[in-house]
Amino acid sequence: MSVKQYIQDHQEKFLNELFDLLRIPSVSADPKFKGDVLSAAEFVKDSLISAGADKVEVCPTAGYPIVYGEKIIDPSLPTVLVYGHYDVQPADPYDLWDSPPFEPVIKKTEMHPEGAIFARGSADDKGQFFMHVKAFEAMMSTGTLACNIKFMIEGEEEVGSENLDIFVKANKEKLKSDVVLISDTSMISMETPSITVGLRGLAYMQVEVTGPNRDLHSGSYGGAVANPINILCKMIASMQDENNHITIPGFYDKVEELSSEYRAELNKAPFDLEEYKKLLAIDDIHGEKGYTTLERTGIRPTLDVNGIWGGYIGEGAKTVLPSKAYAKISMRLVPNQEHKEIAQLFEDHFKSIAPASVKVKVTPHHGGQPAVIPTDSAGYRAAQGAVMEAFGKKAIPTREGGSIPITSLFQKELGLDPILMGFGLDTDAIHSPNEHYGVKNYLIGIETISLFFKHFKEEASK
Amino acid sequence: MSVKQYIQDHQEKFLNELFDLLRIPSVSADPKFKGDVLSAAEFVKDSLISAGADKVEVCPTAGYPIVYGEKIIDPSLPTVLVYGHYDVQPADPYDLWDSPPFEPVIKKTEMHPEGAIFARGSADDKGQFFMHVKAFEAMMSTGTLACNIKFMIEGEEEVGSENLDIFVKANKEKLKSDVVLISDTSMISMETPSITVGLRGLAYMQVEVTGPNRDLHSGSYGGAVANPINILCKMIASMQDENNHITIPGFYDKVEELSSEYRAELNKAPFDLEEYKKLLAIDDIHGEKGYTTLERTGIRPTLDVNGIWGGYIGEGAKTVLPSKAYAKISMRLVPNQEHKEIAQLFEDHFKSIAPASVKVKVTPHHGGQPAVIPTDSAGYRAAQGAVMEAFGKKAIPTREGGSIPITSLFQKELGLDPILMGFGLDTDAIHSPNEHYGVKNYLIGIETISLFFKHFKEEASK
Repeated sequence: MSVKQYIQDHQEKFLNELFDLLRIPSVSADPKFKGDVLSAAEFVKDSLISAGADKVEVCPTAGYPIVYGEKIIDPSLPTVLVYGHYDVQPADPYDLWDSPPFEPVIKKTEMHPEGAIFARGSADDKGQFFMHVKAFEAMMSTGTLACNIKFMIEGEEEVGSENLDIFVKANKEKLKSDVVLISDTSMISMETPSITVGLRGLAYMQVEVTGPNRDLHSGSYGGAVANPINILCKMIASMQDENNHITIPGFYDKVEELSSEYRAELNKAPFDLEEYKKLLAIDDIHGEKGYTTLERTGIRPTLDVNGIWGGYIGEGAKTVLPSKAYAKISMRLVPNQEHKEIAQLFEDHFKSIAPASVKVKVTPHHGGQPAVIPTDSAGYRAAQGAVMEAFGKKAIPTREGGSIPITSLFQKELGLDPILMGFGLDTDAIHSPNEHYGVKNYLIGIETISLFFKHFKEEASK
Repeated sequence: MSVKQYIQDHQEKFLNELFDLLRIPSVSADPKFKGDVLSAAEFVKDSLISAGADKVEVCPTAGYPIVYGEKIIDPSLPTVLVYGHYDVQPADPYDLWDSPPFEPVIKKTEMHPEGAIFARGSADDKGQFFMHVKAFEAMMSTGTLACNIKFMIEGEEEVGSENLDIFVKANKEKLKSDVVLISDTSMISMETPSITVGLRGLAYMQVEVTGPNRDLHSGSYGGAVANPINILCKMIASMQDENNHITIPGFYDKVEELSSEYRAELNKAPFDLEEYKKLLAIDDIHGEKGYTTLERTGIRPTLDVNGIWGGYIGEGAKTVLPSKAYAKISMRLVPNQEHKEIAQLFEDHFKSIAPASVKVKVTPHHGGQPAVIPTDSAGYRAAQGAVMEAFGKKAIPTREGGSIPITSLFQKELGLDPILMGFGLDTDAIHSPNEHYGVKNYLIGIETISLFFKHFKEEASK
């Protein structure tokens, strides 16, 4: 039986198994889901065992465990290391979900006329890493596994992958491979498949501004005592100038100005500004002066407030001058920007612009290094070959805005350029309410991944 | 028996009755407390009846009812109209209260070495209007009531007193009096009693900024799509310039520049900047350039953000570019600034500064007119006389930052300048967690109010 046939025959099983995984609310950012995150790790372990992996283990770390498994069919064959993560983003705000985030259902959408799986983690990354487990099962069951395979599925990607760093450094021999394959990114569309060759890094900060030592009556004190919300707004506003350049001193020092040739190439990717605006229901885009939307999300660093709160946020009116205001602020980074250095620049700057009337506290949450993937490797050519065979079209290389902290870790510690072959769409609402993942994307992903192994065996022997 | 003796003999009863009232969470801003607000109205009715009032009724309005009661001992005598409110501010955030907000307890503090009653509404305004009920009871029981008395206690002061306006206009004859007496303000200290002769008005707005139609992944869209939190911060920041002047066009048009003589007089009130900063634990004050702290809180309009929220505000990190951001913004107004006009100026300006990349919505919450009280009336002289007799010191006339919407309503509709004889302290944390009211303030307030009636009878006949 061919792999393609096996996948067709087991569609329902593959979907049901993914549903079981999606039902586990493995939110790594929130301690109240600790038991669920651990359950998800056990689920991954069991699924690897039943797919046919050897030496499967749930490796403890200082945080959530890393699930490892392998199948070495012939030491002389090349080895593919699969990376993924079983943890998910928080599902808040729950009331904006049309169906509960941890009760997966299939619904049709404009982008997914044949149905999409709605659930937190369906695209990021449960639905995507699970394709590898199922592709492995399909190749094992049909006797077509062409390379050795190793799995490393972690549970802290959404909170910065801090312990993975330690794990990779300590297990270089165990993880030794010829290529790393990751599905945790998106492609342009089913009609225009693409492979991600650049990722932005991330520095995520939390800030706290304290004015008076207690909430005050704004009638008695307003106008005379610093209001931490007004001050925080001023501070945030000042961090971007009228051209939406970031004003943190030193922020751009290591940012490379890319050549006009490179930028012209990047801007060849299909992009329809009117369609983009229509899909987001916005009248205008907004970003750094002098750059296109593809450049703004691909090659330029950014600063976004991801959350803000302070004072009275209930129903009605309360005339309070609050003691404290808070914000979560993250910066997307481009190659050469080191996330810890940027976090420090942010902290120094934030403290320097605070007026004497308030006190500020800055806490770095987590970070990730930016990465660029070369397109002249056996792995990249294998991915191109697999996409061509599955989709009947050549994949376009794209730079994506998201961050996968492990990318640069692999490059540095294992000397491997990961292949970022993701099958989600930008419209899949990852990190948002109503996250979903196309059923067709899931199934063609399993097929494409299986084909990657065949092509990689060929490319690696060239 | 003298009134003073009666008060001494009934201290415990007076405190216990107030405690019963404070146990009712009559939060008018939050619909979930509706039943409790109505219970508080019934409590007021019962307390007026048992104190000896006639014609007591709970008058329905489109919102919460107004409790009326009177005692006409002799139509030829002057009549005092007492105003107060039985509703309270929301108690959020509950976790910052050292004891539950609706379970009153007496604790000693630095400012109240003889104990203060800790509970939401203890100072604003249950503890203060209830002094009038108890003073009335004391005068009735000792046969010393010197003037006729009318009570009008409402339940919507904390949400703008909208229905009181209609009630007063419709009941001018019923409310006909010679003076209005209100205890809903603070005095400088027990050692330096003061009477409020100016109040700022209020315009309270809620704003909503919408960027994309759904929460987005900041990695995929950040830098290219307007982030409503960043935009809201910029908009708020721009509403005050580097001198903390408010930039809304027309905002200051009707603000009177007071004479240097007047300002000099105002600045004679005792004020210790070092003590002020120490009590609030701030290193510096913050306000409009060119004005002192007393001027900033007394005679200048202000703009404060009372609450802000948007994006992910839970534990940990979520890299979301949110669809919406919100803020509650209020402006304190000075004489001649009309609150509805200011609300309109705010709305027009807020809409005009919004970039095309977002949509904004502005909702006025409620407002109140500013007021100035003349110091040459019989009522003011009676208050001075009562304070002198109770405290042994002359009261200082002060301008206060808070707003009591009814003040200007009384002036306009009934032709009466209210006497603002309050006994709270600025440190009583009204509108804040751990609101409290001194036991001694409560008892001396009851005595001073009783003395007011004696003095007013004399002054009114002059």
